[in-house]
Amino acid sequence: MKERAKMKEMMNTETKYYNAPKDSEFCFESGMCLKGLKIAYETYGKLNDEKDNAVLVCHALSGDAHAAGYRRGEKKPGWWNDMIGPGRAFDTDEFFVISSNVIGGCQGSSGPNSIDPDTEKPYGLGFPIVSIKDMVNAQKELLDFLGINRLVSVAGGSMGGMQVLEWAVSYPEIAVSCIPIATTYKHSAQQIAFDEVGRQAIMADPAWNGGDYYEKSHPSAGLAVARMIGHITYMSNSSMESKFGRVKRKEKLGYAFTTEFEVEGYLRYRGDSFVKRFDANSYLYVTKAMDHFDLQGDKPLSAAFKNARSRFLVIAFSSDWLYPPFQSKEIVKALKMNGADVTYCEISSDYGHDAFLLEFVEETKLVKHFLKNTYKKMRKSK
Amino acid sequence: MKERAKMKEMMNTETKYYNAPKDSEFCFESGMCLKGLKIAYETYGKLNDEKDNAVLVCHALSGDAHAAGYRRGEKKPGWWNDMIGPGRAFDTDEFFVISSNVIGGCQGSSGPNSIDPDTEKPYGLGFPIVSIKDMVNAQKELLDFLGINRLVSVAGGSMGGMQVLEWAVSYPEIAVSCIPIATTYKHSAQQIAFDEVGRQAIMADPAWNGGDYYEKSHPSAGLAVARMIGHITYMSNSSMESKFGRVKRKEKLGYAFTTEFEVEGYLRYRGDSFVKRFDANSYLYVTKAMDHFDLQGDKPLSAAFKNARSRFLVIAFSSDWLYPPFQSKEIVKALKMNGADVTYCEISSDYGHDAFLLEFVEETKLVKHFLKNTYKKMRKSK
Repeated sequence: MKERAKMKEMMNTETKYYNAPKDSEFCFESGMCLKGLKIAYETYGKLNDEKDNAVLVCHALSGDAHAAGYRRGEKKPGWWNDMIGPGRAFDTDEFFVISSNVIGGCQGSSGPNSIDPDTEKPYGLGFPIVSIKDMVNAQKELLDFLGINRLVSVAGGSMGGMQVLEWAVSYPEIAVSCIPIATTYKHSAQQIAFDEVGRQAIMADPAWNGGDYYEKSHPSAGLAVARMIGHITYMSNSSMESKFGRVKRKEKLGYAFTTEFEVEGYLRYRGDSFVKRFDANSYLYVTKAMDHFDLQGDKPLSAAFKNARSRFLVIAFSSDWLYPPFQSKEIVKALKMNGADVTYCEISSDYGHDAFLLEFVEETKLVKHFLKNTYKKMRKSK
Repeated sequence: MKERAKMKEMMNTETKYYNAPKDSEFCFESGMCLKGLKIAYETYGKLNDEKDNAVLVCHALSGDAHAAGYRRGEKKPGWWNDMIGPGRAFDTDEFFVISSNVIGGCQGSSGPNSIDPDTEKPYGLGFPIVSIKDMVNAQKELLDFLGINRLVSVAGGSMGGMQVLEWAVSYPEIAVSCIPIATTYKHSAQQIAFDEVGRQAIMADPAWNGGDYYEKSHPSAGLAVARMIGHITYMSNSSMESKFGRVKRKEKLGYAFTTEFEVEGYLRYRGDSFVKRFDANSYLYVTKAMDHFDLQGDKPLSAAFKNARSRFLVIAFSSDWLYPPFQSKEIVKALKMNGADVTYCEISSDYGHDAFLLEFVEETKLVKHFLKNTYKKMRKSK
């Protein structure tokens, strides 16, 4: 417990903000440009004098810049706290870890809930459509600001993994290694379908009001339903079964359709707590970015990785049915066809897609070694 | 085409209604009773003089009494038309096929949209909670009215299969054979979760208004979202992929979050067309009946089938991830432990759960033979 308290002390963190110079514009893939780009970010560990020990971690749909440690007054650590810290997978004794909120998000970076300087009101649907590449380009601008031009690694799970793949393709000279976890190079029809139903749930809420709700009541009911759908897909059939089974909170057949089974209560709780921290328009933008993401396009996937130069560690989880292992294997195959240095590991887990947040013991074994190795090679080749 | 036109001619059908005698009450498992039970039903083929050639088919969540043939002025046949008719699996040249709308439904049988004689308004949430056993008991009352005390078979897929299992347990002396298809003896946590999100989508719609909306606008937006969630679970990953892939209706990144991918258009269409024919409160009642269904209870499943006397043909589909084959195998195992006469067949199919409606060629091979055989044995043992 002392060790833990010490660790906690050491890992106090705060969210910082990058504000683009007033005259500069951030231009999106769509062609639209934004003045006053803002990026929320956190860093863990120390950047060395050579500025060559940086690692970028990328968050998933509902994540944010707060990946590790404890923010002042908060009891919950960051979303990947088990992976980032002294002696951990992303060892902050050795590496300088950067995490930023995606553009289009709602946790401090520019997004639909940001104020449009032209109207002095939140953008709403006036915010430019965001792509995974736009997210990566915003991260690149942050790195430029921090004076970093090489990354020992870019790592992330789920939508974070999509950003990792985009880094490999868009900035092969920066990303020395890439760790895409539980992800895909393009959404299948089923993955689009789950996202679309979530969006429909939000847009079906009259409070959504075409995305213009910031001064009124928010579409919480719709967003909660979207989150509940998501949660089912994050868990595996067997993890749900062992966590809840058919256990009931109330034993009798009820007349009102209130919470009866434990699993119902869990989903409602998850839905309700999500709406307190997430913006419904961001949910639309960020899920659309995932659905649009398609590294392959009209060509074979191997062509997309033609210029990739990174080392790769690709990780998937056996019970992940949202981003099933076969999708990771397709990435590995296409990389191999380009002669890339790629290691693939399928971790046996019952946790479903959530495993990328939970199976930190197994992930640590793989990532820690891979990072140190990459860094050694990188220093040698200088 | 001539053959088809003839078939169509032969299979004109109409929905009939059973109205319980004025003084009689239908009592639910919950203890509540209903005056004026009404059951919508259809029949195909002829009941013979011995009244021993009847087969009951049971519908799934969104089905109704109209299982086969064409109703006057309608272009779409009943939901299991490929399986019911002259020469088909349920051969109307030999058998008298009965199909009725479940109690709690909204297609002619008593349900939350029926008029409560006490208030002269629709019941809404005042309608008694419905169980799978209540559905079966209502079917039993219909059979009594038709003067039928033995069924060559009871058959149905999905929720229809649950009714079949309930028949086997509640009325073993009536159901000579049972054909449960793509079903389970109890919902898993994941199955409950999908239903619950659908219910939440309905209840999140302000128009739902605690179930009291019949004289106002209906909660169509919420019900459509519920239906969309359902549709994803009815298809397999691979059937969605081959049907839609990533094909787009519009090629450019869009600013409004309107239909872009084909799969989105399909889901919206399915959602929108469903709300024209289905009542949101019935969706709540009927999904709850499925979630509550638990043949096992606290005992081993084999104990539930202790008194079962029927012959069984249990069918599952390889790509059905909503009611996966392992759930059917558990039923088979429990039946075998009771020495029951049970045949199990897993049909290899890409259609997912929808296969029970679509794989009629394979189903016909199994069902037709099984029924004729059962009928032969039944007549012999007289």
